[in-house]
Amino acid sequence: MARTADTAWLDKSIAAKRGTGWGDKARLHELTEATQGKYLYTIGPYSDPVLSVTPGDRIRVETRDAFEGAIRNESDKPTERLRMPFVNPQNGPIMIEGAEPGDAIAVHIESMVPRGQNPCGTCCMIPYFGALTGTSLTATLHDPLPELTRKIHVDEHKVRWSERVTLPYSPHIGTLSTSPEIDSINSLTPDNHGGNMDLPDMGPGSITYLPVRVPGARLFIGDAHACQGDGELCGTAVEYPSTTTIRVDLIKGWTLDWPRLEREDFIMAIGSARPLEDATRIAYRELVLWMEAEYGFNRWDAYMMLSQCGKVRLGNFVDPKYTVGAAIPKKYLAPAS
Amino acid sequence: MARTADTAWLDKSIAAKRGTGWGDKARLHELTEATQGKYLYTIGPYSDPVLSVTPGDRIRVETRDAFEGAIRNESDKPTERLRMPFVNPQNGPIMIEGAEPGDAIAVHIESMVPRGQNPCGTCCMIPYFGALTGTSLTATLHDPLPELTRKIHVDEHKVRWSERVTLPYSPHIGTLSTSPEIDSINSLTPDNHGGNMDLPDMGPGSITYLPVRVPGARLFIGDAHACQGDGELCGTAVEYPSTTTIRVDLIKGWTLDWPRLEREDFIMAIGSARPLEDATRIAYRELVLWMEAEYGFNRWDAYMMLSQCGKVRLGNFVDPKYTVGAAIPKKYLAPAS
Amino acid sequence: MARTADTAWLDKSIAAKRGTGWGDKARLHELTEATQGKYLYTIGPYSDPVLSVTPGDRIRVETRDAFEGAIRNESDKPTERLRMPFVNPQNGPIMIEGAEPGDAIAVHIESMVPRGQNPCGTCCMIPYFGALTGTSLTATLHDPLPELTRKIHVDEHKVRWSERVTLPYSPHIGTLSTSPEIDSINSLTPDNHGGNMDLPDMGPGSITYLPVRVPGARLFIGDAHACQGDGELCGTAVEYPSTTTIRVDLIKGWTLDWPRLEREDFIMAIGSARPLEDATRIAYRELVLWMEAEYGFNRWDAYMMLSQCGKVRLGNFVDPKYTVGAAIPKKYLAPAS
Amino acid sequence: MARTADTAWLDKSIAAKRGTGWGDKARLHELTEATQGKYLYTIGPYSDPVLSVTPGDRIRVETRDAFEGAIRNESDKPTERLRMPFVNPQNGPIMIEGAEPGDAIAVHIESMVPRGQNPCGTCCMIPYFGALTGTSLTATLHDPLPELTRKIHVDEHKVRWSERVTLPYSPHIGTLSTSPEIDSINSLTPDNHGGNMDLPDMGPGSITYLPVRVPGARLFIGDAHACQGDGELCGTAVEYPSTTTIRVDLIKGWTLDWPRLEREDFIMAIGSARPLEDATRIAYRELVLWMEAEYGFNRWDAYMMLSQCGKVRLGNFVDPKYTVGAAIPKKYLAPAS
Repeated sequence: MARTADTAWLDKSIAAKRGTGWGDKARLHELTEATQGKYLYTIGPYSDPVLSVTPGDRIRVETRDAFEGAIRNESDKPTERLRMPFVNPQNGPIMIEGAEPGDAIAVHIESMVPRGQNPCGTCCMIPYFGALTGTSLTATLHDPLPELTRKIHVDEHKVRWSERVTLPYSPHIGTLSTSPEIDSINSLTPDNHGGNMDLPDMGPGSITYLPVRVPGARLFIGDAHACQGDGELCGTAVEYPSTTTIRVDLIKGWTLDWPRLEREDFIMAIGSARPLEDATRIAYRELVLWMEAEYGFNRWDAYMMLSQCGKVRLGNFVDPKYTVGAAIPKKYLAPAS
Repeated sequence: MARTADTAWLDKSIAAKRGTGWGDKARLHELTEATQGKYLYTIGPYSDPVLSVTPGDRIRVETRDAFEGAIRNESDKPTERLRMPFVNPQNGPIMIEGAEPGDAIAVHIESMVPRGQNPCGTCCMIPYFGALTGTSLTATLHDPLPELTRKIHVDEHKVRWSERVTLPYSPHIGTLSTSPEIDSINSLTPDNHGGNMDLPDMGPGSITYLPVRVPGARLFIGDAHACQGDGELCGTAVEYPSTTTIRVDLIKGWTLDWPRLEREDFIMAIGSARPLEDATRIAYRELVLWMEAEYGFNRWDAYMMLSQCGKVRLGNFVDPKYTVGAAIPKKYLAPAS
Repeated sequence: MARTADTAWLDKSIAAKRGTGWGDKARLHELTEATQGKYLYTIGPYSDPVLSVTPGDRIRVETRDAFEGAIRNESDKPTERLRMPFVNPQNGPIMIEGAEPGDAIAVHIESMVPRGQNPCGTCCMIPYFGALTGTSLTATLHDPLPELTRKIHVDEHKVRWSERVTLPYSPHIGTLSTSPEIDSINSLTPDNHGGNMDLPDMGPGSITYLPVRVPGARLFIGDAHACQGDGELCGTAVEYPSTTTIRVDLIKGWTLDWPRLEREDFIMAIGSARPLEDATRIAYRELVLWMEAEYGFNRWDAYMMLSQCGKVRLGNFVDPKYTVGAAIPKKYLAPAS
Repeated sequence: MARTADTAWLDKSIAAKRGTGWGDKARLHELTEATQGKYLYTIGPYSDPVLSVTPGDRIRVETRDAFEGAIRNESDKPTERLRMPFVNPQNGPIMIEGAEPGDAIAVHIESMVPRGQNPCGTCCMIPYFGALTGTSLTATLHDPLPELTRKIHVDEHKVRWSERVTLPYSPHIGTLSTSPEIDSINSLTPDNHGGNMDLPDMGPGSITYLPVRVPGARLFIGDAHACQGDGELCGTAVEYPSTTTIRVDLIKGWTLDWPRLEREDFIMAIGSARPLEDATRIAYRELVLWMEAEYGFNRWDAYMMLSQCGKVRLGNFVDPKYTVGAAIPKKYLAPAS
């Protein structure tokens, strides 16, 4: 694939340097609604593959929105249209040829385009779900907050939030995973296999690195967001159906405990846990160890230096586990001259 | 089964009043090591049943210890003998005839007897596991605490902890579950399907009520403890192989969000979550709603009254989720005279 | 003071063995409402002493209820009668002669007797305060739960909760403190100086050990509860005015990081923090180190043994910090024979 | 004061619109080391004022570094040079004329200049303090991480972290407070009075709004950082002595529950609590209510919209309470056209 100015950095990415397939002969696969057939709500080793690809291949994926299209207009109530745990439908599993436990896969998101007729974006307040409400876990005796639905015009430039406010189109994938070794985890929950991380950085221009824990890796993808604030406060982003094009590579022998992410200007380690400080601890510890293992920093130097220049992104603090990314600009990783 | 003084209360239990099979014609099933064959490390709908029983039946189960017998003497190191996530082996799944989503099953533990030659009890300090150490989730940069193994004589009267200290034999089941609807959850993690709750109350003389979320309920059982303190501080109890005899009943149409437990003198609601206050909130909210639904208390009266007489049991605060039981003595539930 | 069967153990207590004044010549001081004058709402080094005592002396203290008597009948609303932070009034500071930073003081609660006309007990649901509601810290957008007041008959035998339920009189002191070194902390918040721990074990028959951080220790006491469940669920116990008789001793050179408690049959270390697992970690770590320092246990033996026989008491999980006691029965502390 | 391009926005700030003194006649006060005399370690109503100013006045403050200069070279060990709680020395209290409970004060930071000879910056790893270590609250049985000191060249352009890495000079004030009503809180702990928030946004070009809870407000300031990453990972930033120039204004009748911050392009609400999700909940709830009260948003619209465009800044997750700022760009607050 020819590199534009925006994608030139990919040739210097970790995937390019370590991967097995990131060449010019990428084949393009289509994973349409029809090909996918039944979307999945749990991420694990027990479902049937829908596609098998060679490292370096590209896949154009038709993702459904997190409500699987069931919320059609602003009078639709989530409690009447949805049944837990059948939300956040996933495409996949996609098998990556040659992937074995102990490897990593790289998922480069090339582009995300809205699908379907407008208003194709949906945001809901769902009873007992969200950050500023009692929930099934932060259990209270309160009546629920109002149940509300918002339908939103989304195109490749903008998100028309309201008459008053228009937001930029800032697409990203909310849920991206490989399979756990023996567990199957609902698509609402992030963990060390990836899952529902809801990180705004995980859009076009990013490469996400995921651990391989079963043969073929079993890649799952879904939950496109047209935009999302830090923390996904009310529990839902601007959820929309997308055509997302990714390119997948395989990195042999790179064993990851948690997902990682790379963009042109920074690297990020990702942790998902409760309470939120544990998610943050995981992300930063992984980043310290990464700087030590790959960029030649002394461990304590990395720890003290991140205290001066580390960047934290709050993915969500509404899911069953919360997600935090800890990042450092690449410019601070340059070798001593 | 004839009731002794100790078991007379069972005839007034919730299971006796609501169940379908708690009669005198209990059949006894054997679930031996040989019958079980391969023990399981994940609890879900994707494994093959090993047994099917009628409500009211009894089952004598040969449980393996949490290390599946791999820690044989005090020089055995957990990191050399164990590979995650293959710990805490479970018997099952056992199908309960007639159980359908929306029902509950009742598991009465009749007796627990040690199996195998002494010292059959094992307690380990496992690196980065336990309450007073950095862990995979409460991530730190510390070196691990020492890795230690203790082999312990266990019989039906006592646990010989050391030359200095002998503890009473206080057996209970650490892990008891039905299947989630679509997820499969490793046997180390408790959640609203039960799982690794590590509640010392869950021994002989207890009835545990679990939600049915798939046809047949799919009961899993394992992780016998000869004794355990509140919180399971170092991460492991006195783990031992047992012959545990249970009786299983079916309660149609009793839909539970979380497990519950009954003993002669109290009822208990159980929550599992992080942080620990969320586990406690869940348990107490379930107890308030239980008092309201079944014992005729006004909701706010129940809430304020538990503020005066509620009892909290910390199961564990070392597992991927922590477990708390909130209880009230039955004597305070008597109807107004 | 002559020992009865119930108090004989005091002669073998830590205070008796290490203290300076626990003899037979106890003087009795009266700290009445009149003597106290203005009750205090913050615990620190900046207030004027109301009394000075010699180690070994007894003090009969007239405590006010946590609402300082402002909630007189069931139609009184807390939001109309109370103004934060002017709740939980404290008696004191009482100076302990000879107490210096690095010492500990021992507070033996001898008796607690209700004062005033019945119904002298009060329990309230206060908006945005309690365990099953959004609060000022666990911030939500919910409307408050109902604001309710309960007036309760309390005598030395019983607490008449309702027509339906009578609870046993189980008195204890909710708030007991020495002064921090330079901070002054509101009386609602527990911390390593003691404070609003709300531990049901802290009643007659207990000795609480508190760190001395300023000359004279500056003892504060208040917040009598006629009974309280684990966790103080709705945020308030059966709050009542009491005559509480304590005896105070001084232990030179016993430097405590956190409060400790002793009863006839167990010792307990106390931690206060958020989240709740941190309070529990503190309490258990202090207990491990205590067993090592004073009872001859190897550190790792103590850690693993508490995993089998430790007991946890949840004081409150409603205050600005939560309180947990971790205990071990004295019988397991006996030296090897 | 004449406005440059950079400061023109100040004339449209909340302080300019609501304040009483933000005019052109600012008097400049000097609060030098000599004027300050004894620096303070606790923030409350019990200390003697060092200065009194009129709303609109400017103050040039000589802050000391968080170690009060005791760490002079890289061989100095924090445990040998520091004694808790005597760290993080504060200037103040400064009385603001006319400030009464229920008002707010505005603190505009105009400039921050390093003081003293280089290397004037200090960063330490202090035993049991920091995010990736067991601490006094997240109590473990680990040995401490290494105790390390780093002395760093700081000037108005750069922070020379190491031979390999130079960071931009990004000064901000770590600790800024008014006085609580009756408590006095150590300068290490942030809370709803401000305190040790460690927010990198609180530098030149920011206005911080703080609640007035005692007559005169009693302003405290200290803890300058030459730069700091999100979370202040190892527990310390590049701590340095500064000359910080602020301008103070008074806003009558603006009653704040928590501190707030304004910069040219965004407004931010600030919460400090544990666990970290509670700090985040506070910040976001305050921001929702702020948008409702002052910018004409419907509450649920604000809640759902922040789910799409809210920004979270992690101040610290190492202090006794953690600090989070939740922000929204001003461009989204513009009235409907």
